[in-house]
Amino acid sequence: MSEQASLGTVAIVGVGLIGGSLALALKKAAVVDAVIGVDQSRGALHQALDLGVIDEIGEWSDLTRADVIVLATPVDALFSVCQGLHDLDLRAGVVVTDVGSTKGSVLAAMREAYGEVPAWFVPGHPIAGRERSGVGAAAADLFHQHKVIVTTLPETDDAALGVVSRMWHATGALVSFLSIDDHDEVLGATSHLPHVLAYLLVDMLKKDLHHEEIFSYAAGGFRDFTRIASSSPVMWRDVCLHNPEVLKRLIANYRSRLVAFEQLLDDGDGERIEALFLAAKRARDAHYQLDNES
Amino acid sequence: MSEQASLGTVAIVGVGLIGGSLALALKKAAVVDAVIGVDQSRGALHQALDLGVIDEIGEWSDLTRADVIVLATPVDALFSVCQGLHDLDLRAGVVVTDVGSTKGSVLAAMREAYGEVPAWFVPGHPIAGRERSGVGAAAADLFHQHKVIVTTLPETDDAALGVVSRMWHATGALVSFLSIDDHDEVLGATSHLPHVLAYLLVDMLKKDLHHEEIFSYAAGGFRDFTRIASSSPVMWRDVCLHNPEVLKRLIANYRSRLVAFEQLLDDGDGERIEALFLAAKRARDAHYQLDNES
Repeated sequence: MSEQASLGTVAIVGVGLIGGSLALALKKAAVVDAVIGVDQSRGALHQALDLGVIDEIGEWSDLTRADVIVLATPVDALFSVCQGLHDLDLRAGVVVTDVGSTKGSVLAAMREAYGEVPAWFVPGHPIAGRERSGVGAAAADLFHQHKVIVTTLPETDDAALGVVSRMWHATGALVSFLSIDDHDEVLGATSHLPHVLAYLLVDMLKKDLHHEEIFSYAAGGFRDFTRIASSSPVMWRDVCLHNPEVLKRLIANYRSRLVAFEQLLDDGDGERIEALFLAAKRARDAHYQLDNES
Repeated sequence: MSEQASLGTVAIVGVGLIGGSLALALKKAAVVDAVIGVDQSRGALHQALDLGVIDEIGEWSDLTRADVIVLATPVDALFSVCQGLHDLDLRAGVVVTDVGSTKGSVLAAMREAYGEVPAWFVPGHPIAGRERSGVGAAAADLFHQHKVIVTTLPETDDAALGVVSRMWHATGALVSFLSIDDHDEVLGATSHLPHVLAYLLVDMLKKDLHHEEIFSYAAGGFRDFTRIASSSPVMWRDVCLHNPEVLKRLIANYRSRLVAFEQLLDDGDGERIEALFLAAKRARDAHYQLDNES
């Protein structure tokens, strides 16, 4: 089917929405010999097998047969997962990657297990998701035309980087390379900070305005603006706890902009307020060319 | 058609999206004898007549024939409009209302023209709109199931209040009463502040992050969150300039919440971060029960 070389045997550790969708995409692209699923939940594994997401239910020791291992567990499990990898005699030339939205914790877990970040570990971050979770929601096209960030460290092995990039490319994703620091900065700005801003606004309106019907007066813009405040509190708590320094810097920067804007209001400086709004509108419209409804 | 008493002759001053949609809705509900359109633009008036939005193109002096006068011009025109009303010999029992999203300027304009806010002036604010503007975009169902806030002052005449309420009810809108102060507070919180927050975030990302592709890494949540930053810079400049005190208070309150959140990050207090996110999610989900996709 595919003209690409096979990735060999791929093991997915954590067969949920992301891990399952990756397995489906790789099978669809015919770039794998077999997909082994490993998960604490036997139910998830059997469901994945039934759905054709994985070819085989694996035990932990089966990871020694994998050419590529994808860590797709919740962040909380990463320390024990990395320790578990260290306890195995992995295949020579094995490539390991992950799918986490913050990179600090997986690197810390790798360092704790190995004393360093192994050259064959290439952190990845697919920017895709959907409201439903679990392998039942997995879809082969989840990553199609979505950005996947492959992050590099100085010690990363080139061949391993190539394997992970090729894997994501096969899913139809748009693969980008960023340093770990740039990744955390860019995601902090475009994802972590907006979530915090939305959560804080809704909480403030609820607590301070003492108006039972406050939300009923909101127009469509408010609904869109606060949609991300309906995201998982646990997941976003973890993101905040794993990227606190970048987030604090961004929040402080944002606060200084609020102060500057209060000064514009004090001055009644319509010209500069309009210029600021226009610059923002242009920046956004330039990117979302088909999305100017508001 | 309707069992309701007629509003008599309704004059729409400013035949654009809002004024035109109101005219269409009132004609559809059969609660008007005739709709007179008054506008500086002859083109808009002829288009409105051709589309059946108005029954008659009126001159300024024709406002003396109206039972209800709706001011639907841009905010900037309100001072000369109110002065123009004062120069006419309006019908006894006339009721005048407006459709502005901030109420400070129309009240100031009325006070300048009349020395006080006349008892027959009832400020109104339909919370509805669409991206396209102009009478060509007018629709009879624009207000259907949308909130319309009718604001009251101590001096407001009860009968005038009743007429304006009945008018909006006939359009299918959900009519609420708020004091002017509550109106400005509620709209400041659910509309003006979110717009400022979105504009400032986009501007900050564009200016400070020095990353050409910053927006390309953003997921769907960011797109929704920043959609209102594509709104009209001129319109939102005017809103900010007309509601600065409330907006400054809300921004200061919001800043204090950002500071408190930075402290939670400093403390690594996952428990309170999660509790805050959960409270916000619950408040939002309780209102938007069918909108939990994020």
